[in-house]
Order: sequence, then structure tokens, then C-alpha cells
Amino acid sequence: MKFVKGHGTGNDFVILPDPDGTLDLTPSLVARLCDRHRGIGADGVLHVVRSAKHADAAGLASDAEWFMDYWNADGSIAEMCGNGVRVFTRYLVTEGLATPPEGGLPVATRAGVVHAVMGASDISVRMTTPRVYAAGTATIGALTVPGVAVNCGNPHLVCTISTPLDALDLHVPPGHDASLFDEGVNVEFISPVGDLHVRMRVHERGSGETLSCGSGALAVGAVVLRDAGRTHGVVTVDVPGGRLTVTATPEGQWWLAGPAVLVATGEVLL
Amino acid sequence: MKFVKGHGTGNDFVILPDPDGTLDLTPSLVARLCDRHRGIGADGVLHVVRSAKHADAAGLASDAEWFMDYWNADGSIAEMCGNGVRVFTRYLVTEGLATPPEGGLPVATRAGVVHAVMGASDISVRMTTPRVYAAGTATIGALTVPGVAVNCGNPHLVCTISTPLDALDLHVPPGHDASLFDEGVNVEFISPVGDLHVRMRVHERGSGETLSCGSGALAVGAVVLRDAGRTHGVVTVDVPGGRLTVTATPEGQWWLAGPAVLVATGEVLL
Repeated sequence: MKFVKGHGTGNDFVILPDPDGTLDLTPSLVARLCDRHRGIGADGVLHVVRSAKHADAAGLASDAEWFMDYWNADGSIAEMCGNGVRVFTRYLVTEGLATPPEGGLPVATRAGVVHAVMGASDISVRMTTPRVYAAGTATIGALTVPGVAVNCGNPHLVCTISTPLDALDLHVPPGHDASLFDEGVNVEFISPVGDLHVRMRVHERGSGETLSCGSGALAVGAVVLRDAGRTHGVVTVDVPGGRLTVTATPEGQWWLAGPAVLVATGEVLL
Repeated sequence: MKFVKGHGTGNDFVILPDPDGTLDLTPSLVARLCDRHRGIGADGVLHVVRSAKHADAAGLASDAEWFMDYWNADGSIAEMCGNGVRVFTRYLVTEGLATPPEGGLPVATRAGVVHAVMGASDISVRMTTPRVYAAGTATIGALTVPGVAVNCGNPHLVCTISTPLDALDLHVPPGHDASLFDEGVNVEFISPVGDLHVRMRVHERGSGETLSCGSGALAVGAVVLRDAGRTHGVVTVDVPGGRLTVTATPEGQWWLAGPAVLVATGEVLL
């Protein structure tokens, strides 16, 4: 079984090329591949299949040749992954399997077809429109901080803090309003760096603190623009794993841009 | 740059084949390769060089053809790694680069030449003789537990506990007697499973809790045999990453046995 390893701002993936969908991918195989000590190690698997060759994407085949069959490290399936789409696109273009047309490369996902645009070094993905909808609070130990609830398809709580970001202890999940988030929440803590520029740390439900979270950066971009009294603009979000850029266009499109790097290619012996 | 990834009881390594010593390995390259999110990811690098081709092993070339040039994940150099020698030997034998003679394959390390013996599935390495030398204590939060100081070339504190092993919070280093260990210590917590059979969790200085520690298992084996009033015997040590076996022979040799698995082979694109 051939693989490629890649990452976007430290969010890393085992890419499994399988154009004709002949690979028998199972939750246990995914978990073994993603095991960071006994496998290759990654946050998830990007299974690269032609849309026409995968049951979950067959209806999208006329709009997008390639399907990102995304699996979490634990072997469960997820609808979408913003950092994943960028790395997926980097792989297709590097291998000569796709050439992005004007307007972006269509990529089929379980959340529908998304579009990826190649920059000089970054890759940008069009995301769903974030919805800022309520006030909430997060607690870390004795500290209680106000936050803003944002829905990006998944739930987020964005908290601007005045204490040093590096001093936060995120090894246990921050407390949150259970009434607002009955299925848990990703909590982003941000501190301002400059105009429309923040640093962010994130605690993801089910994963703990991570080096990067694409939808978290999107939620942060929405809150930063709102707080600046703007409906569109470009927000820079520095995450522990690198830099992401959120762009809201005057036409109401939301884009997430950042690096997408392939680090190794090889064969699995497991 | 070609690589192989392998592990022994979850202690994992990037293996870099470089028979003629032409690779310019630097601390920053090692750190980038071992980065678990932006590189390949591992606890360390096993640089595979002929002893005659590496300055640190040239004097050992007549005793051992191959030198295990071992680097920690942070780019520092270490003398020896028991799990590493097993994986190093698995690589050499799988690639046909060495055939272990009677008495074991000699492997040059910065701690001298060690010997590895192939079993049906496990590989066994002859270790230095552990020295049990003092009583100490470890503290975890409000809990204080008695322990035994053991020197295996590096310092260990072995603590037999009566509380559930899984309940220990090892995300911060256990407290220890600074007077006994002025350069820090690896702390092993064990609970009995049966006769000469224990479960172990370990906190390694500089690394935090790990899935396995070869010298830690050796220290535990020495304490278990001593507590059983024996000078030789076979001790089974179950670590979070698998099973290790410590054998003290009637002749006073100490051997560490366990699995050594190659999981992937490939090429680095970094």
C-alpha cells in the first residue's frame, strides 16, 4: 500500500492514493496507520478516490472528479476538513492528477463539493459561511472568560483574552455553557497582534489542544471582522502550527488560506 | 533521502540508511524528521552507518561492522537505546545487510559494542548490569510512594504501588529526592500481575510519559528479582506499548527482549 504524508499548519494526514477505489479501508486499518508510535502517525487519512468509484460521492462525479474520503485518526468518518482539502489538492496537483481551472479545483467531500485555489505557496479553500449567534463563557481553572458562539458547520466558542496566551493550561478541556453546546464545542482563545491579526490557541473536542484548526480559524475570522465593524476583509490567524488567512469577500464568500506541504512518500509494511 | 520507520513496543524511530556515511545529519534535520506533525515523527533517529565510516565508531570497526548513530528527537545525541538496538538489528537483517552469528550480532554504539540475538518474533539485546543502590520516594500530587534507586547507565526510581496504575496522573513529572538524583531520573511505577510479572508505567526525564522504556524495564526487572529473593530469572514487564522481557542469567548477563517492527519505507520530501 503506497502512501504520502503531508500537513497544513501542523494538521497532518496520511494520504492513500486509490483512484479506482479498490482499497478496502477499514476503521481499524485507519487507526493503525494514524497511530503515532506504532504506525505512520497522523490526525487523519485522506483517501484519494475518483468520485465515480466511491458510493458516498457517486452523485457528485459530474461536478468533481476526485473525492476526499476523509477519516479521523480513531477510524471514524468526518464530513469535511479545511486543512485536509488543501493537502489533498497539493497531492493531486503535485502528482499531475488534476489541474485547477479558473475558479478553483472542485473537490467532492461528504459535505458537498468545495473549491480549492492554488496560490504561490498557499492553497485556499472556500468554506461555508460562519454564523455568529450567541454570547457564552469558557472556564479554565479559576479563570472565566467571555466568548462568542460561532457555527461553521461545527460548533465554536471564540474567546478574546487579555492574559498571556502562552500561560493557558489547555491539557484539560475548558469548561463551557452546556445549554449552548449540547454536543461539545471547539474553544478558540485569541489575543490581538495588530489590526485584523490575532494569535490563536485551540482546544478541539475529542482531540485536545491541536497545532491548528481550519474551522476554528474561520470562526475567529468572523468574530474579528464583526468586532472591527466590518462585513468583509482579510484576517490573519497565527496558530501554533503556522499562519492561516481568512478572507470574507464583498460577495459574501469565505475563504481559508494556508500552506499545504508533502513531507514523505513511501510504502506501508504493516 | 530514503528512510524506514520502525518501533519496539511503541518506542519509534526514523531509520536512515547511510552505509558509507555520506549523509550530512544535523540536529535541525533530525528535529524536523522527528516532528510528529510537520515531519515523519519519531522518538529518535537511527542513523545506519558502517563503523569504519563514522568518526565516533572507527575504533569499534573490527568488532562490529555497523554503528547505531543514535539521535534523540530534539536533535541531541544519546549513547544507547535498548529498543533502538532491536529495531536497528531488525532493519539490518531484513535488508540482508547482516546475518547474526552465534552469540548475537555485534552493534557498535557510543556506549560500546552491544549484542543482539534474533528470536522467532522478538529480538533480545544484552544490556549493562543494573545496580540497585538506595531507597527513595516519588510524589504525585498528594501521593507519596516509596521507591528503589537503580542505575542502568542512566538513573531510575522503581516504585511498586498498591493504588490502580491507570489512575496515576503522569502529565507532570513526579517529584523525587533531589539529593539522590541531581540530574533528574526516570520514574517507573509498577503493579504486580503474577509471579515475576508486572505492569509498568514510566515517566522519562525530558520526554514525559512514554509507551515504553527499555532501561526502565531493566531496572524494574532487577527490583522484581531482588524482591523475590532471586539472583537470576525471567521477568515479564507489560508497558503501555507492549511486552518486554528481562532475563538475568546464572552467569550474570542481563538481556532485554521484545518486538521490533518495521512499519513503512519511503523517501523524505522535506
